[in-house]
Amino acid sequence: MINTDNLPNDLKSLESQIVELRLKMEDMEKKNPSNKLSMVVFSGDMDKILAAFVIATGAVAMGMEAVMFFTFWGTPVLRDKNKKPGQKDIMSKMFGAMLPKGTCEVKLSRMNMAGMGTAMMKSLMKKKNVASLEQMLEMAEELGVNIYVCEMSMDLMGFKREEMINYQNMTFCGVAKFLEEAKDSRIQLFI
Amino acid sequence: MINTDNLPNDLKSLESQIVELRLKMEDMEKKNPSNKLSMVVFSGDMDKILAAFVIATGAVAMGMEAVMFFTFWGTPVLRDKNKKPGQKDIMSKMFGAMLPKGTCEVKLSRMNMAGMGTAMMKSLMKKKNVASLEQMLEMAEELGVNIYVCEMSMDLMGFKREEMINYQNMTFCGVAKFLEEAKDSRIQLFI
Amino acid sequence: MINTDNLPNDLKSLESQIVELRLKMEDMEKKNPSNKLSMVVFSGDMDKILAAFVIATGAVAMGMEAVMFFTFWGTPVLRDKNKKPGQKDIMSKMFGAMLPKGTCEVKLSRMNMAGMGTAMMKSLMKKKNVASLEQMLEMAEELGVNIYVCEMSMDLMGFKREEMINYQNMTFCGVAKFLEEAKDSRIQLFI
Repeated sequence: MINTDNLPNDLKSLESQIVELRLKMEDMEKKNPSNKLSMVVFSGDMDKILAAFVIATGAVAMGMEAVMFFTFWGTPVLRDKNKKPGQKDIMSKMFGAMLPKGTCEVKLSRMNMAGMGTAMMKSLMKKKNVASLEQMLEMAEELGVNIYVCEMSMDLMGFKREEMINYQNMTFCGVAKFLEEAKDSRIQLFI
Repeated sequence: MINTDNLPNDLKSLESQIVELRLKMEDMEKKNPSNKLSMVVFSGDMDKILAAFVIATGAVAMGMEAVMFFTFWGTPVLRDKNKKPGQKDIMSKMFGAMLPKGTCEVKLSRMNMAGMGTAMMKSLMKKKNVASLEQMLEMAEELGVNIYVCEMSMDLMGFKREEMINYQNMTFCGVAKFLEEAKDSRIQLFI
Repeated sequence: MINTDNLPNDLKSLESQIVELRLKMEDMEKKNPSNKLSMVVFSGDMDKILAAFVIATGAVAMGMEAVMFFTFWGTPVLRDKNKKPGQKDIMSKMFGAMLPKGTCEVKLSRMNMAGMGTAMMKSLMKKKNVASLEQMLEMAEELGVNIYVCEMSMDLMGFKREEMINYQNMTFCGVAKFLEEAKDSRIQLFI
């Protein structure tokens, strides 16, 4: 005859092992990155910003979340050309004047040729049905792409929040916020 | 005496918990990225393309899969200088003429100095036994590095498939394909 | 009455299933990336290097490990302006003279304007309490950011180890070492 004396104890041991496994698994699951794409948009070049938006909107179209962290030369691209900032010191005025004001003023990173190359590219994009940066930005807003704007860059270049475009999911934040998102993302890029 | 009345039920409960854990784990395993590297090669600069190939071939040498997605200025680098495209409109002809035709025409991103810096770098690479871009491309093909070419860029710049180099694992595709690969990769870079 | 004849065998089967799950889970855990950030610092531009250090030190401040792999134009930035290399061939001498010697000689990627833009940015950074590159480097060292220097780049540009700054966690290595770190990282960037 089979001895079943130890069975209840064995069962309890098994049960506690299962509980332990489950906790470990939940812990691992929490650490798993979300179905998200995070990118730093450092560049202020038309071509790179176009690539950034194509990637971000493409990701959302695929069911991913997308986060764009605009910093340094990327920041002025989010200015609204029709908005006027209030009082500024001389340095901020100089930066303000020298940097592109919004998506329509950005230039190609190469072959700009005093603006001719950029104009050529814009006309080509129209002809080939590639969305312009303005359309991309609209699309991104509709699709719910999150735009973060680097506060340090805003401060350095003397930009004010009231100069920036209206965009639903726009947040002003620091690098820590970006890193948090990036850590929780399946894809991270620096553009 | 120990009461064993509930044992069979307890066992069934444990078994179903184990099944549940197993399914959860298989699900997590499926979501885990593959041992793969995905990169966007946006740049058309000799130095950056060299870096891209060093990283891609290095990854394969380490047992990883490698995917290079050539877009924008990276695209013309994959043209074959000995192949002639058919009829082209004027814009495409202009782009075709202004952009480097193949790996041997690309330039350094800085210190090009009217080609002198690039020539200097090429001679240095030879002297120091660093593979040239042409050799890198060959090595990448042999190692099975996957090259994806961005169809939107091809279209924008008016490049035709018959102009491109012969490369075994070359696919023409869109950004969605890249994102799929990147999502499933342990390393992603934008170069 | 309940039949308990098969109980011991059932228990053993459950136990072996649990062991199997545990092994699988440990295997998955080993493959999970560490709480680490790895970046390639390819660029030698002041603004990009600043961004790289802001990100790296920010990551460590958040409890992550950080690895910076300096390659190509990033390499000369790690030279110590007060150290003199020994004998060099003519090519190495040329590179040595043309490339920035240390963090204080790097320039903005745009709006350098013969050094005026870079000077303006430096004064702005001071005014806005943004750490200079020199301070960033110090902070990185204190925080334990790992700096890897690409041996191929050192060799190509003719830099010698004795020319480089003193930095506690500095290692000279190849691309394989970077890939190993990147594979095991939650965030990877190419700057």
